[in-house]
Amino acid sequence: MKKVIVQKFGGTSVADTDKIKNVAKTVIREKNNGNDVVVVVSAMGHTTDHLVKMAKALNSNPSAREMDMLLSTGECVSIALLTMAIQALGYKAVSFNAMQIGILTENVHSKARIVDIKTDKLKKNLEEGNIIVVAGFQGVTDDGEITTLGRGGSDTSAVALAAALNAERCDIYTDVEGVYTTDPRVVPNASRLDIISYEEMLELAHAGANVLHPRSVETAKQYAVPLRVRSSFNLDNMGTLIVGVEKMEINKPVAGVAADLSQVRVVVCDVPDTPGEAATLFGCLAQENISVDMIIQSYARKASQTNDIAFTINKEDLDKASTILDEVKVKLGAGDVKIDDNIAKVSIIGAGMIDRPGIASTMFKTLATSGINIRMISTSEIKISCLINKEDAQKAVKALHEVFQLECDEIADVKGTLPEDEL
Amino acid sequence: MKKVIVQKFGGTSVADTDKIKNVAKTVIREKNNGNDVVVVVSAMGHTTDHLVKMAKALNSNPSAREMDMLLSTGECVSIALLTMAIQALGYKAVSFNAMQIGILTENVHSKARIVDIKTDKLKKNLEEGNIIVVAGFQGVTDDGEITTLGRGGSDTSAVALAAALNAERCDIYTDVEGVYTTDPRVVPNASRLDIISYEEMLELAHAGANVLHPRSVETAKQYAVPLRVRSSFNLDNMGTLIVGVEKMEINKPVAGVAADLSQVRVVVCDVPDTPGEAATLFGCLAQENISVDMIIQSYARKASQTNDIAFTINKEDLDKASTILDEVKVKLGAGDVKIDDNIAKVSIIGAGMIDRPGIASTMFKTLATSGINIRMISTSEIKISCLINKEDAQKAVKALHEVFQLECDEIADVKGTLPEDEL
Repeated sequence: MKKVIVQKFGGTSVADTDKIKNVAKTVIREKNNGNDVVVVVSAMGHTTDHLVKMAKALNSNPSAREMDMLLSTGECVSIALLTMAIQALGYKAVSFNAMQIGILTENVHSKARIVDIKTDKLKKNLEEGNIIVVAGFQGVTDDGEITTLGRGGSDTSAVALAAALNAERCDIYTDVEGVYTTDPRVVPNASRLDIISYEEMLELAHAGANVLHPRSVETAKQYAVPLRVRSSFNLDNMGTLIVGVEKMEINKPVAGVAADLSQVRVVVCDVPDTPGEAATLFGCLAQENISVDMIIQSYARKASQTNDIAFTINKEDLDKASTILDEVKVKLGAGDVKIDDNIAKVSIIGAGMIDRPGIASTMFKTLATSGINIRMISTSEIKISCLINKEDAQKAVKALHEVFQLECDEIADVKGTLPEDEL
Repeated sequence: MKKVIVQKFGGTSVADTDKIKNVAKTVIREKNNGNDVVVVVSAMGHTTDHLVKMAKALNSNPSAREMDMLLSTGECVSIALLTMAIQALGYKAVSFNAMQIGILTENVHSKARIVDIKTDKLKKNLEEGNIIVVAGFQGVTDDGEITTLGRGGSDTSAVALAAALNAERCDIYTDVEGVYTTDPRVVPNASRLDIISYEEMLELAHAGANVLHPRSVETAKQYAVPLRVRSSFNLDNMGTLIVGVEKMEINKPVAGVAADLSQVRVVVCDVPDTPGEAATLFGCLAQENISVDMIIQSYARKASQTNDIAFTINKEDLDKASTILDEVKVKLGAGDVKIDDNIAKVSIIGAGMIDRPGIASTMFKTLATSGINIRMISTSEIKISCLINKEDAQKAVKALHEVFQLECDEIADVKGTLPEDEL
């Protein structure tokens, strides 16, 4: 049996008919390598925005079910067009939406998780020599309800298909050249990583590198699907391979540096120092689906028998969190709630830092030498994060990138400007 | 059990979000009459053109299967948006595509016929108080292949749903006020017909009146579904009811006058007068799916033992027909093939002309008095058609409309200009 390669192309890669023609060529190139090819595509460029705009014009709070019905059409347009483009080049191809294949999800709209993928139709069509083009981002429930997978959904579709088909590899084609040691828009001589572990990629993703959604990386890790992130527009570059840490030879302690400017710091002052107070506080936030990242509880002040509890959350959750905290502080008998959005979280990530105790102190020293004040610290086995002032973020990334010798000799050819709220 | 009303709204009725809001109100109006409502919608305005244009940019001859995948998305956008608009007005509604319901068709792409409609999901949702919004124009095969129904497909979807649900009536909302005695753009005081039989409507449709596709009328006739054609934009006007002739009281012999400018006349000269020649000729055309309308075979000329065979076909089929006829004339040993596109077919239609022999002669006399030469004649039980020169078409329609007393006192309020190739 032939090897199966799953390829995924995002919205920018299929934004217009010329780009779709290019994607068709990339698909055929893989087919000509002697592999069976399954292609997952997203909706064309701004399709989703256009559909959402129409929905909002009709209903300020459209139902999640109907939004899924609406948005899932975008990928169906892409798969039909890409299939036509492949056929125009003389290759056999066939498109399927999630309902036709049986990409089964939970019965939840707008952010469903895939529970099973039927493979009979896929295998039959591969055996017949077809390139298969699948609609990403969408699924179907047992009852025939159309669902969507939420953020990073098409990546997740691709990885899940690769797992179901026991694919050789899942290639995520995107508008960047791969995973970099840090954002090349900040550090122009950032190096592209040839290889990185799932764990490091997850930490990099959580730390603010927007290449892949954590969910797709987690799925790849769970099913040990090798992932490759590479550019749609530069096929000579092999991008970055993401695999299990056991398959890697680790040379450097630190693989990458990332900065996350999307968080805000919240301090609940004067929380009475009695057992269960923190559990109450974070329990209430968890109930509303608010993820808390770094947490620091100060030593109890003996005089007042109170603590300050500081933590970070995503900016998007701030309004919801404020409402909850106003109630909780009364319940706890705590003092003021202070918000600070002038913060950045800078992280160094590397599977190689396990059992190398000097790394953390090198990080702290480097920040100190640069005159950067550290406000909070959190660590995991393969990551050290420091919360600093927002205006220091760029300086911190550059200094850390240099001290851990991550730069390459070439200047990365990176297009685009920095969006607001990124470094 | 409540009565079920099926409503169908075409592309112009849902062309933008404001129009969709209007449709939502029309739907609710019917719901508030105490009926269960199933709504069938087409793709928004120019969606289909846009999709076809992209397809053509990618593949000069896109596969019918992928075109169906592509075009079927248009209706899915409409159903989601209309459902949101209905929900915004506080009513329960749910959208379904053809695959979800099980609108089963033959396994033919781009012009499939409906073979069955599953009603369990529809009935369950009506019982739960939902307004159901269904994607028109599309179907699904037993194998889960997506099909489309071809021209007039959404009308056919609506009628077939009405038949399957044993609906009280199927209301086709469109941009005209109903069915007229003739095209009101030609005869400003044409009358809107309150009621017309399926048979008359079919003849009117075939004769060039573009209100409803014949296929949907045929389906309505087959299942005795009362059809109403009415305006989306003027709800005070009840439009035209189309029912079985047995339910009508017939006052006038002629119900309407129509002109068809879409045909060309073909004459195959000097066809040897031996048995089977006509069968060969029309057999070859039928094999290529070319419909022949009027046929006249001249008396055999005794000297040469040959006939001239004249017939009309649709302009669209002319290229295909020419190729076939060039081969056939050699096979038959016939002479030249002459094409004349300077023709119009003018028809009078009426269930009331059965057993009233004077009608035909009145038609011929009227045309003669107007100085119009009749080139071919064909008749059915409820229709008489005359082929005339194109430039006489407008004059003929006016004269016939007058002589059969079809005008009303008011001038119809009809917008729009005459498209090319229409009167």
